[in-house]
Amino acid sequence: MPHDTALAELASFLGDRLARSKPEREAHGRSETWFPETPPDAVAYPETSAEVSRIISTCARLGCPVTAWGTGTSLEGHALAVRGGVSLDMSRMNRVLAIRAEDMQAIVQPGLTREALNSDLRATGLMFSVDPGADASLGGMAATRASGTTSVRYGTMRDNVMGLEVVLADGRVIRTGSGARKSSAGYDLTGLFVGSEGTLGIITELTLKLHGQPEAISAAVCAFDDFEAAVRTVIATIQMGIPMARIEFVDETGATVFNAANGTDLPEKPHLMVEFHGSELSAAEDAKRFGEIVAEMGGAHFDWATTTEDRNRLWKMRHGAYPACLAFRPGSMGLVTDICVPISRLAEAVRETRADIAESGLTGPIIGHVGDGNFHSVLLIERDNAAELKAAKALAHRMAERALRLGGTITGEHGVGMGKKDLMEMEHGAAWEVMARIKRALDPDGILNPGKVVEVSQ
Amino acid sequence: MPHDTALAELASFLGDRLARSKPEREAHGRSETWFPETPPDAVAYPETSAEVSRIISTCARLGCPVTAWGTGTSLEGHALAVRGGVSLDMSRMNRVLAIRAEDMQAIVQPGLTREALNSDLRATGLMFSVDPGADASLGGMAATRASGTTSVRYGTMRDNVMGLEVVLADGRVIRTGSGARKSSAGYDLTGLFVGSEGTLGIITELTLKLHGQPEAISAAVCAFDDFEAAVRTVIATIQMGIPMARIEFVDETGATVFNAANGTDLPEKPHLMVEFHGSELSAAEDAKRFGEIVAEMGGAHFDWATTTEDRNRLWKMRHGAYPACLAFRPGSMGLVTDICVPISRLAEAVRETRADIAESGLTGPIIGHVGDGNFHSVLLIERDNAAELKAAKALAHRMAERALRLGGTITGEHGVGMGKKDLMEMEHGAAWEVMARIKRALDPDGILNPGKVVEVSQ
Ligand SMILES: Cc1cc2nc3c(=O)[nH]c(=O)nc-3n(C[C@H](O)[C@H](O)[C@H](O)COP(=O)(O)OP(=O)(O)OC[C@H]3O[C@@H](n4cnc5c(N)ncnc54)[C@H](O)[C@@H]3O)c2cc1C
Ligand SMILES: Cc1cc2nc3c(=O)[nH]c(=O)nc-3n(C[C@H](O)[C@H](O)[C@H](O)COP(=O)(O)OP(=O)(O)OC[C@H]3O[C@@H](n4cnc5c(N)ncnc54)[C@H](O)[C@@H]3O)c2cc1C
Repeated sequence: MPHDTALAELASFLGDRLARSKPEREAHGRSETWFPETPPDAVAYPETSAEVSRIISTCARLGCPVTAWGTGTSLEGHALAVRGGVSLDMSRMNRVLAIRAEDMQAIVQPGLTREALNSDLRATGLMFSVDPGADASLGGMAATRASGTTSVRYGTMRDNVMGLEVVLADGRVIRTGSGARKSSAGYDLTGLFVGSEGTLGIITELTLKLHGQPEAISAAVCAFDDFEAAVRTVIATIQMGIPMARIEFVDETGATVFNAANGTDLPEKPHLMVEFHGSELSAAEDAKRFGEIVAEMGGAHFDWATTTEDRNRLWKMRHGAYPACLAFRPGSMGLVTDICVPISRLAEAVRETRADIAESGLTGPIIGHVGDGNFHSVLLIERDNAAELKAAKALAHRMAERALRLGGTITGEHGVGMGKKDLMEMEHGAAWEVMARIKRALDPDGILNPGKVVEVSQ
Repeated sequence: MPHDTALAELASFLGDRLARSKPEREAHGRSETWFPETPPDAVAYPETSAEVSRIISTCARLGCPVTAWGTGTSLEGHALAVRGGVSLDMSRMNRVLAIRAEDMQAIVQPGLTREALNSDLRATGLMFSVDPGADASLGGMAATRASGTTSVRYGTMRDNVMGLEVVLADGRVIRTGSGARKSSAGYDLTGLFVGSEGTLGIITELTLKLHGQPEAISAAVCAFDDFEAAVRTVIATIQMGIPMARIEFVDETGATVFNAANGTDLPEKPHLMVEFHGSELSAAEDAKRFGEIVAEMGGAHFDWATTTEDRNRLWKMRHGAYPACLAFRPGSMGLVTDICVPISRLAEAVRETRADIAESGLTGPIIGHVGDGNFHSVLLIERDNAAELKAAKALAHRMAERALRLGGTITGEHGVGMGKKDLMEMEHGAAWEVMARIKRALDPDGILNPGKVVEVSQ
């Protein structure tokens, strides 16, 4: 067995928190999407930063790769230990360490999930805003620079992580950031670790920015005859400076999928789902002004979710998009790809992608956080159908090329992992080599999540 | 003369845009504050990115340091070529390259100043929000991660730089970021160069985020009997979720200084200066709710700046604080120091700093962007008075220690430069060494702005 020495040494202090059973390894070898199963050699369950440090220094000394595992929901094979070694499962480090209500900050461990944090916050009047479709771990979300439906208003993980504790590739522990809202004290290490997908260090603690729960909320769904009118509505809303808390796009296939999964009767047309946060007065005013734009753009079936239950149902439906898609084509798996473009090119990007999907013969709803210019297509592939998988990969590749041609990025929020590594040079050119230099500077032996983002030996 | 070979080679392609005259060197050897004059060996005025690249590769090959110069307004000796070599004056690269109104973005050269950009934007309905007290260059502002009065609402340079073109220490040119509002495509290089003070690369182009000019604005000044009431007002306003566009604190000495410089009759008490942006309705509502908080906290002399002229006068006065302070004590120079703490510790930080200033016998108004927990003290020192300078430095040092003790940072926005390098280890501990590793990875020979932020050989 490879890495036997390292694993024996880890077992000596982790005991049965170093799991080597087949089911446990397999559970950490699967992703939510099409990547082939690649079980790690063992799964470690640390409970403290000191333990993470000891695991990493042991592995570094013995050349055993370590790949962090949050909740395993990332969509580009990020958390798979493709070069073997240890899967570092953070789920036992899942405590809220402090809630600093006056400073609107929470200090948490990385294995805590966003929903668990928000239930702890409920009574405080505060909330943590970033909400990917999965109930992901906050460490994993930081590591992928995740975002969600509310990022158009409250920002992504880039904006909502104020500081970190990080275990480096040699086991040393550092702290980045501070409790202050801003700083100019040197290089932005917090920003460097956020989005580094566990390739530069292991996050063992996060200081997160919180926001006040809105005093008033108004939410709505509206349908459009064509997606261009929906996109024009988004642009006009942004231009008018109406502060949207959420603005999500769902195409007609997506509406069909939602109806099938939720028993709703959305017209089979492109939709926007929106939400406004503010005082009673301002939320109402924003909603009214948005309604005027929709009317002008020819939108219809305008439906306000007035009660909390209606609203929760709406966003639950939106967050449940991925399982709904999978259920729509029984026996399928999804290749979920995301791109992000400047708002001015959004209509073009969606139009070309729709045509491309239609031509490919695949089923693929388009759903997106369009206020950010970000959208996904969920390509439904029959399991073990190599031809469909190939077609879907080619389509995802063309989407990435399209995003770059339109001035955007190959991934707005899902990240690079394995799936988009081949596209990095196309996006970054010589800057990719700068990333390699940083990787070498921080993890010269390539211990941390090797095979992702960038290679040490690049 | 040191670096003669390098300078001769630079002159061969820059012609008289390589200046070696004494006045020109001296002008680039002075800062706005107490640092001793240290003229560079020459001043280069590049006009294109290609020229910057050629300058840097020439200097790298011949071991000649290069220190970028924006408008030279930084306050910790950042732009001084303390190890000799070339001052790279970016003032001729000052064009707006594109305004993308639909995407709310501007692409600019680094030598453009924030005011010049905003006058170009006036007719577009858009604005660039970051407004340090000086009319600084956008490249310099990015390099120091500057902020200003509106950062509480619109963010700092960290939040408003979307992408960069950067010339690396070996002369290669890279691009970071994209036109998309967010991305998860690898390490955040934009964020790494922002705040790196010209020690990792030279910024030759910036993609900036713009914001809509507010439909309605309301601004006010109000006085408090004691600063604690003012600080409590700030905290309550944040907690209530009232979206302030600006909230500035000025202590009683500051009010005295303002009166002297502007002929105003502010009561000699602590003040808040605030502004709200929104629709007519929401700006009025925010102002009303703020007024209620002020009343509750015992604030008085509430004065609304209702006309545009009144408002401009108010913010001009605020932005003119530094020259007003200097004029207040003729023949003085200023040691301006800034710290930033969590909001919950702001009252404590201000209280202790006031006592400290009083005890030191120095004159030092406290003025700050308190919505961010950030404040400055402008310590007025008689020129060539070594004892006063020493006392001021010691006081600034204690302020930094205090900021750290209270969970904050040694600098909220001014940066490290030379002045705060000795404090970096105290703030960052082992993380400072990570900064050194990044410095070595990107600038192994220490060509770029040596002597600032972190040493290659650390
Ligand atoms: C149904 C569904 C909907 C989704 N919707 C969204 C969405 O709206 N927006 C979005 O951004 N994403 C979305 N995603 C993707 C996924 O939820 C995010 O990428 C999320 O951030 C992953 O978190 P995780 O805890 O599952 O991380 P994992 O998948 O376990 O790991 C992700 C990466 O982070 C690293 N990592 C994990 N923990 C740490 C740590 N403590 N320190 C260092 N590195 C670590 C791993 O090594 C890996 O490289 C969705 C996924 C699904 C399945
Ligand atoms: C009156 C007054 C008020 C101020 N108020 C504020 C305030 O409210 N908020 C605030 O943040 N600051 C404030 N400052 C400080 C100063 O204005 C900022 O630090 C500003 O960002 C400096 O910009 P500059 O163009 O003058 O840069 P410079 O002083 O010329 O240079 C600053 C640093 O950036 C580097 N640099 C410059 N251009 C580039 C480039 N193109 N590429 C790479 N590196 C570069 C330099 O090498 C140097 O290290 C104030 C200063 C004064 C004098």
